[in-house]
Amino acid sequence: MPEARPAAFAGQKIVIVGAGLAGTLCAIMLAQRGARVEIIERQTFDPKDDYSNRRSFNVTVSSRGEAAMKAAGIWDRVKARTIAITGRTCHEGLGSTFFSYSRDRSVALHGARRSDVNGELLAAAAEHEGIAIRFGWTLRDLDKASGALTIAPVASDAPAETIGDADFVIGADGVHSAVRRLIHRGERADFTQRYLDWNYREIAIPAGPDADHPWRMDPNSLHLWPRGDLMMFALPNPDGSFTGNFIYPCAREADFAAIGLVGEMFRREFPDVAALVPDAEERLRVTPPSYFPTQRNSKWSHGDRFVLLGDAAHATVPFYGQGMNSAFESVLELVSCLERFPRSERARAFEAYQSARKPHTDAVADLSIENFDELRSRFRHVVPQARRRVEVLLNRLLPNAFVPLHVRVSHSLEGYRTAIDACARRDRLLRWFGFDLLVYAAAGGQIAATALHRVWHGGTGLSEHLARRRAVAAAHVEAEALLPGDPSSERPA
Amino acid sequence: MPEARPAAFAGQKIVIVGAGLAGTLCAIMLAQRGARVEIIERQTFDPKDDYSNRRSFNVTVSSRGEAAMKAAGIWDRVKARTIAITGRTCHEGLGSTFFSYSRDRSVALHGARRSDVNGELLAAAAEHEGIAIRFGWTLRDLDKASGALTIAPVASDAPAETIGDADFVIGADGVHSAVRRLIHRGERADFTQRYLDWNYREIAIPAGPDADHPWRMDPNSLHLWPRGDLMMFALPNPDGSFTGNFIYPCAREADFAAIGLVGEMFRREFPDVAALVPDAEERLRVTPPSYFPTQRNSKWSHGDRFVLLGDAAHATVPFYGQGMNSAFESVLELVSCLERFPRSERARAFEAYQSARKPHTDAVADLSIENFDELRSRFRHVVPQARRRVEVLLNRLLPNAFVPLHVRVSHSLEGYRTAIDACARRDRLLRWFGFDLLVYAAAGGQIAATALHRVWHGGTGLSEHLARRRAVAAAHVEAEALLPGDPSSERPA
Repeated sequence: MPEARPAAFAGQKIVIVGAGLAGTLCAIMLAQRGARVEIIERQTFDPKDDYSNRRSFNVTVSSRGEAAMKAAGIWDRVKARTIAITGRTCHEGLGSTFFSYSRDRSVALHGARRSDVNGELLAAAAEHEGIAIRFGWTLRDLDKASGALTIAPVASDAPAETIGDADFVIGADGVHSAVRRLIHRGERADFTQRYLDWNYREIAIPAGPDADHPWRMDPNSLHLWPRGDLMMFALPNPDGSFTGNFIYPCAREADFAAIGLVGEMFRREFPDVAALVPDAEERLRVTPPSYFPTQRNSKWSHGDRFVLLGDAAHATVPFYGQGMNSAFESVLELVSCLERFPRSERARAFEAYQSARKPHTDAVADLSIENFDELRSRFRHVVPQARRRVEVLLNRLLPNAFVPLHVRVSHSLEGYRTAIDACARRDRLLRWFGFDLLVYAAAGGQIAATALHRVWHGGTGLSEHLARRRAVAAAHVEAEALLPGDPSSERPA
Repeated sequence: MPEARPAAFAGQKIVIVGAGLAGTLCAIMLAQRGARVEIIERQTFDPKDDYSNRRSFNVTVSSRGEAAMKAAGIWDRVKARTIAITGRTCHEGLGSTFFSYSRDRSVALHGARRSDVNGELLAAAAEHEGIAIRFGWTLRDLDKASGALTIAPVASDAPAETIGDADFVIGADGVHSAVRRLIHRGERADFTQRYLDWNYREIAIPAGPDADHPWRMDPNSLHLWPRGDLMMFALPNPDGSFTGNFIYPCAREADFAAIGLVGEMFRREFPDVAALVPDAEERLRVTPPSYFPTQRNSKWSHGDRFVLLGDAAHATVPFYGQGMNSAFESVLELVSCLERFPRSERARAFEAYQSARKPHTDAVADLSIENFDELRSRFRHVVPQARRRVEVLLNRLLPNAFVPLHVRVSHSLEGYRTAIDACARRDRLLRWFGFDLLVYAAAGGQIAATALHRVWHGGTGLSEHLARRRAVAAAHVEAEALLPGDPSSERPA
């Protein structure tokens, strides 16, 4: 990313539809380069609003998001709203196991409430004299040729207004983008929207009574409860609470109407969470369900007047923690393309931006769905576990040559597609050198050890519990893979 | 389809968004059963409007469409606006070959301008006292819970109005349905929209000077010019003209900007059309391109208040001539489901309607894309040609037992999915009985005959031309397959 060039956008007016994460960051970067920016946002902004019932997965800032916020000079203030996450804790029954992202907990993601990061970005934007934000206005229509927008207030009957003097418009209005719909109207634009067969409901795990250390689980950890068809995540908040997400098959949506059904299941599968949230069932019942859409579209811009950004261009499911990080990479790429081409060739800049980003955003969308399947159910299969073990072994032997995929995704700035392809090539090569034999040997060893243990100890109760614990540990040992020298990794505060 | 039951919808008010083919037919059938129907249509209606630049493929009424219009008692008046199509004419160079749908031209499709059929349906609807039509109004918003609609006039600044007293709303507002978008908002609804890599432009072939017989090609035929990547269709109109559709790869869209390029190519590939339309290039240049979208969505209704119909639910490409026919089948199914369930269970009626129709509309969408590939390029491959020949042979030997797929699609009322599955099962069975050997023997025979011909006649010019003619004939001989007793087939007037 080049240094901010104050003149690059001087004299230009840019309208951004949507004051979410991507739109606000983009506004800041454009204003830093001389543009006048006007943001149109449908919602009204209340810094105290916790955005619950809106968008409830906490965000995790990884290397990519950090690099983008550093480029905009706002990382320090955003970082102050986050909490360092140095590993994952896997909960099985009443026990739990921690797996560090690095041997000494020196590598961290930065977790935060989405609304806290968004609020901090909005505050930074509001301080910039080049940025004006109109809350409570919605896009009603647009003129594809001239770039004019018709906007209307959401809550009042005040008449619609026209913004006709923008050089161009950025549609950063999220998964259900109105800009996307309006620029696609009458155009050849392929579009796919697929939902996972799982829904989720947020459930807050409240802070404890100890003001010095209010967290009632490890605060520097992503907490996971994998249960096959069911799953729970919890991410720490700086105030001592955790944002929990309960994930269930959409076919079980009706269960929430039957009193007792969800509570019983919740206490059985997540006894430790149920102990921390006594009224879990009632809380889950009153929370509306949220869904997991993945979207792809073949047309991210229209002429030299409109371009899409963030979820409006490439919505993904959150299971690799890359939604915001990927959106922020798109912000960097868009600004960089606009700087690289002369203003008269803005349409080409938009095309270059899509060409540069789409292979990677499509790749991370697939990867995020695969990771959900892995988190939910891979724990029970011996061969994938063995594969992980062998990968970690190789990584320990050759820490700079053999870097696992998840490290290249979460702790590097390499393109997603590039990382995936490089790992696939490496894995093909390893297969020639007997990697699969090694994996099957390790799997065979594990099966034999479990069987021996069972014969030796006779009973099945304890040994099965232990085997399950070991299986979980095997799947998670990946997290301990060594990281190559990564300038963006941070020690937790 | 049961007889119209005057009381089935008595006392109900139903709003239909969209006065296209499906919406208008549905309005007529509901009004015949006692409903008050209000239709909201964005466009203004002018019976003289030829709808060019809007939706330009002519329609062909096949058995399914005919059955639906008979059920609504309007087939005779619509039929008067159509022209019988008893076969296809394939144009190669300056020559052409006719292939009848039946041996004696006794089986016909009914071709018409879309606007003529739509106009006739609107006239029939306007005569019904139970139907009110508001032209020039557009849907702005809807309330998913109450079923209330906010509508606004398109051309004036008159204030928006609310329709709050409808029992339910039918979204028949086409490929880019606003009802679909608004009921899908915030719901788990999978949606796919894919465009073919080809676009098309309409080109009218004018009537000739002879008032008694103004058609300058066979008027009772679908005309085809298959050229691999390029293609032309022409369908006759009752007034002596033909509606032509020129289909080209979307990558060649820019060619239309370069003077001479399209004209030269058009004269080379379609010399007989170019002779009838001297200013073809200029006409093509001023016509905007149209596209070929296919859409699928997983949610055709919302609660007991909203349901989608026709293209809004299942848009397909036109290459099997089944878009309108399939939409009309959906009208019959929707009305039948609504009659079958008590009013209090309307949501279940909507679900039954989707369950009954979606397998078939998905199937015909796939089939229509495959048929485009076949029409464009299969002509050049020997094995598919031989397969057709053997199929026709079998059909001649066993006319009631072996009915080709295209006959079951176009000349029966069997569900699309059912027809495709039955043909696939039959083909698997035939393979066991040596069908493939027969096909390869026929293909080998053809290759040998062509080679012999070439050796015998020495030169390649004439013989290649003949071979090409024969290949086209082989691909089209399918059209001569015998039809089983089909009560809906009509003799041409």
